[in-house]
Amino acid sequence: MAQHNFTPTHYHTAIGTHESVLSLADGDTVSTTTVDAGGHDASGEQVTEGGNPQTGPFYIQGAEPGDSISITFDHLMPNRDNGYTSSKVAANVLDPGHRTGFDNDRVVWGIDFDAHTATPIELRSRDATPNVRSISPDSPLGKLTLPLNPHPGCFGVAPPRGQAISTSTSSTHGGNMDYKRFNQGVTVHFPVFVEGALFHVGDGHALQGDGEIVGTGIEISFNITFTAHLHKGKTIRWPRAENDTHILTVGNARPLDQCVQHATSEMIRWLTTDFGLDEQTAHVLLGEAVEYDMGNMFDPAYTMVCKVSKDILKQLGVM
Amino acid sequence: MAQHNFTPTHYHTAIGTHESVLSLADGDTVSTTTVDAGGHDASGEQVTEGGNPQTGPFYIQGAEPGDSISITFDHLMPNRDNGYTSSKVAANVLDPGHRTGFDNDRVVWGIDFDAHTATPIELRSRDATPNVRSISPDSPLGKLTLPLNPHPGCFGVAPPRGQAISTSTSSTHGGNMDYKRFNQGVTVHFPVFVEGALFHVGDGHALQGDGEIVGTGIEISFNITFTAHLHKGKTIRWPRAENDTHILTVGNARPLDQCVQHATSEMIRWLTTDFGLDEQTAHVLLGEAVEYDMGNMFDPAYTMVCKVSKDILKQLGVM
Amino acid sequence: MAQHNFTPTHYHTAIGTHESVLSLADGDTVSTTTVDAGGHDASGEQVTEGGNPQTGPFYIQGAEPGDSISITFDHLMPNRDNGYTSSKVAANVLDPGHRTGFDNDRVVWGIDFDAHTATPIELRSRDATPNVRSISPDSPLGKLTLPLNPHPGCFGVAPPRGQAISTSTSSTHGGNMDYKRFNQGVTVHFPVFVEGALFHVGDGHALQGDGEIVGTGIEISFNITFTAHLHKGKTIRWPRAENDTHILTVGNARPLDQCVQHATSEMIRWLTTDFGLDEQTAHVLLGEAVEYDMGNMFDPAYTMVCKVSKDILKQLGVM
Amino acid sequence: MAQHNFTPTHYHTAIGTHESVLSLADGDTVSTTTVDAGGHDASGEQVTEGGNPQTGPFYIQGAEPGDSISITFDHLMPNRDNGYTSSKVAANVLDPGHRTGFDNDRVVWGIDFDAHTATPIELRSRDATPNVRSISPDSPLGKLTLPLNPHPGCFGVAPPRGQAISTSTSSTHGGNMDYKRFNQGVTVHFPVFVEGALFHVGDGHALQGDGEIVGTGIEISFNITFTAHLHKGKTIRWPRAENDTHILTVGNARPLDQCVQHATSEMIRWLTTDFGLDEQTAHVLLGEAVEYDMGNMFDPAYTMVCKVSKDILKQLGVM
Repeated sequence: MAQHNFTPTHYHTAIGTHESVLSLADGDTVSTTTVDAGGHDASGEQVTEGGNPQTGPFYIQGAEPGDSISITFDHLMPNRDNGYTSSKVAANVLDPGHRTGFDNDRVVWGIDFDAHTATPIELRSRDATPNVRSISPDSPLGKLTLPLNPHPGCFGVAPPRGQAISTSTSSTHGGNMDYKRFNQGVTVHFPVFVEGALFHVGDGHALQGDGEIVGTGIEISFNITFTAHLHKGKTIRWPRAENDTHILTVGNARPLDQCVQHATSEMIRWLTTDFGLDEQTAHVLLGEAVEYDMGNMFDPAYTMVCKVSKDILKQLGVM
Repeated sequence: MAQHNFTPTHYHTAIGTHESVLSLADGDTVSTTTVDAGGHDASGEQVTEGGNPQTGPFYIQGAEPGDSISITFDHLMPNRDNGYTSSKVAANVLDPGHRTGFDNDRVVWGIDFDAHTATPIELRSRDATPNVRSISPDSPLGKLTLPLNPHPGCFGVAPPRGQAISTSTSSTHGGNMDYKRFNQGVTVHFPVFVEGALFHVGDGHALQGDGEIVGTGIEISFNITFTAHLHKGKTIRWPRAENDTHILTVGNARPLDQCVQHATSEMIRWLTTDFGLDEQTAHVLLGEAVEYDMGNMFDPAYTMVCKVSKDILKQLGVM
Repeated sequence: MAQHNFTPTHYHTAIGTHESVLSLADGDTVSTTTVDAGGHDASGEQVTEGGNPQTGPFYIQGAEPGDSISITFDHLMPNRDNGYTSSKVAANVLDPGHRTGFDNDRVVWGIDFDAHTATPIELRSRDATPNVRSISPDSPLGKLTLPLNPHPGCFGVAPPRGQAISTSTSSTHGGNMDYKRFNQGVTVHFPVFVEGALFHVGDGHALQGDGEIVGTGIEISFNITFTAHLHKGKTIRWPRAENDTHILTVGNARPLDQCVQHATSEMIRWLTTDFGLDEQTAHVLLGEAVEYDMGNMFDPAYTMVCKVSKDILKQLGVM
Repeated sequence: MAQHNFTPTHYHTAIGTHESVLSLADGDTVSTTTVDAGGHDASGEQVTEGGNPQTGPFYIQGAEPGDSISITFDHLMPNRDNGYTSSKVAANVLDPGHRTGFDNDRVVWGIDFDAHTATPIELRSRDATPNVRSISPDSPLGKLTLPLNPHPGCFGVAPPRGQAISTSTSSTHGGNMDYKRFNQGVTVHFPVFVEGALFHVGDGHALQGDGEIVGTGIEISFNITFTAHLHKGKTIRWPRAENDTHILTVGNARPLDQCVQHATSEMIRWLTTDFGLDEQTAHVLLGEAVEYDMGNMFDPAYTMVCKVSKDILKQLGVM
């Protein structure tokens, strides 16, 4: 259970069977950094092409197709004092033909590490030479101060069939799920499709609303520490996760309906197989106690999350 | 601002321009009852045909197309000690071809009014002469005790164009939205499409999971007290609501994506028109702070809810 | 098998359990007229409110829930020399955010009854006082001469549960399906939900592209002759049809995927029940020989049609 | 304009930036073979892993991102006398919960090259040791004789961002579109995302119904001759095609609605840019004359095709 420090020198904008940068034993911990969605590092310098560039991949020793691995996010924190968002809700999230009367300026947010918040400070146009306007702290936009909730928007393992899948999208291998509760303390499980699993991580968000509906969280570079575990012979179909309060399953697809179908079916498999509930009890439990969250409704594949409270599982005597 | 007591003698399984049962002035309060989704009253007797039968409609004096009305649920409580759910997650919520190996028995839940909880007590087969099995309190299913959260699954106003729309579905007029946070204390606003608005209400749920994915909450008869208000000249397109913590907008359609489009567009109209935010600020706010809840993913039209925290609106100085 | 002539005096913009205008015995034929989608008659005068106003309903003697009825369109022909279309593809048919740079003018088309064609002759703006421009016959738009294919866009029977459903949409009862092959010679079958079935018809199109993607065919008033038949005890779930070359089933829903699910499931029921194919043969036949057409992708409910060639059914010895 | 003969020695089940097998100049023609979806060659021997293995990729000299290439299918013909299909319509094409009562046997079809037809001759169970039953030529299934319509189900070019995309799905780069009118004589255009474009082809179908709804056409190995052209500086977003009667655009996504959005938007770009129609004329033309076909409704991404008749373009004087 070694502790590794890893400084990335290159990044990937597709998640695939790339050469690994570090080999991890079961239980090893890694402290590393990620650049922001546009490829900018802690100093704000662009060090790689944009598009959710990933740090890694990390090779998990012993991982083979049919196994699963888990990643626990021990520490997640922006490593610079500003990030950015888009300012316009994506057309696919609004009524077809809904009209907006402003430009999709970039919003620069200042990070207050003491208060653990972020606030819009500047609007930058998308022109080649951006028109920059500072945001008055007395304007409604300038008063919008939101609590930090650092989470990586995109992470996952190499997909099957020799595929390399763009970090703009997601599937059974994880990818660009943009789910705000994949934050510090969560443990996320992935199916293993290739030898070593090959874990990638990037696209840090200082915080994000449900659905990532402007197409960004607050995009920012991260310091990140994670611990990897191998679950030998434990086969799963979709990402699963666990935090302090819930167990969670993830579906990545379009439309949102299909995400829900994947996540709910995976939850039933989990409840019946690992928690030993009979099938009918699992269904009744979900019917009256399931919760759903939206990851993103922006990427080529959307993300929905199915959740069950740990308190209920404890009440039933299966956790 | 009169207080009416109304005892229903008949019910409707379509929401439409039916003869009203009571005429309400702006601010009037009504105490009445609703039968359960199957048409059973407080004594458990079936008094009308099933299918979410509605109490009402209630005529709101002065309401005309182009206005909106609001209903505040002052008091919502089951009026008998047992309700029922289905036991099988609907096929449209699971992966196509997902197989289940049990029958869709009806589950009878006992209501504990002191503890404010519900617990499964009995399984009944769907046979003409049901096979009834009691559920052991020591089984996982028997241990599933959930807090009551009484809410009417289906309520709304007469739709436009002389339509009468089945209480199995929903649209701009409300209807079968099955949203668990339309509970006691909430105020829900509806567009007015016909003179008098014609408010209907029924389909009480003792509690429900997100999505109503087995096709039922705990179906039960209710005592209900609500207050009606008229908002003259206030035009809205989709139901809006307000509770202690959030403002909410509702989209009813298929697939879930379209629900989100309707709800989000309505929220932007609300934020810019009533709260006076400029359009860009409204979009940025939603991008990083919006929340989405699922009403149902079972009915012909699904329901998604878009929410913004009141704390944020207060922070911005617009509430 | 009487021949009726019926002159409508009023129209309906919702399909429901309205008072019938004529009672038909099995095999009776009716010659009548329909106004255009905007409520204009053969003289171009607006005689009723717009929104696909329907002629009827016609009562089919002996029809009861669980039966089906069929309507054969013996004769369909515009009864004036001009119709109109919108000019802009609907936003829901284009990529979210796709921009267009022109106004949705109304296009007036001239009908040439000798050539059996229609041609754009005039553009009219949507202003209160329309700006009218004639279209040069030498322009590309003026050269667009298309063959007439008269068909009613909206027709169907009263829906169940006391519903009245807007003529802007469609469901199991038919309605606004906007399918160009429901033209002269076709026989369309409907489930019966109320006593007398109550057949409505309107929304004539001189011709239309697949999907009715500008939201209109060439909207025009019609002379129409149809023959009604009762199929006692023949239960169907969705509209079915038959023309010279194919048998057809219809699904009305959103998204298009769900339309296909309904239409294909109905076709399997038809092939196995009425044509006596074993289930596996029906599936294999569909897998390699099914055809799909799009009705509309504009209305609240879209329409897809599943087709099987009669030649194949004859080859198999089941027709 | 050389004529190449190429004998493949290996295949790919993801379309990506693999090492090319042959370099083609603009106008060169290649005669080669493809194995069937399961990796079986002309002799029926399995020579590579299944999953729509692709022959190629072929490097088109001079092709760079921003260009497009076109492939004309000069000759497409099965090179053995039998192929196979599944026998069960996919669950996602049927109503959720639709029940079937038979096993998804494999159907072996015999090819009659003289009659240019295919006929089911054998059912094989999916067991490890398949149960094989011959199909009586007197049974309905045995009488199902369909005309050959050879077409490759899956073909396309390397996608952008270093991706390698499974041959089970499709996107802007083409892929598993399963469209029956991509048959002999068609010319298909693709965007170029990587140097050399890297054209792959495989998954031959002797014939197929719309939608590939059992998940297969008649899967068979092919002799194939195609001609490649480079269109320098001609940027397109989605595959386009041309056959004797129509110009066609392709959208690959889920749900079907989104496929239609992509294909229709691409058609508008084509009509306005290459054919010089003003935008309003393009929309009016599509509104009343567009046709849509379904490629597949089985793969992770579905396929819809938007078509405009060449006769109409000629009539307008733009072709």
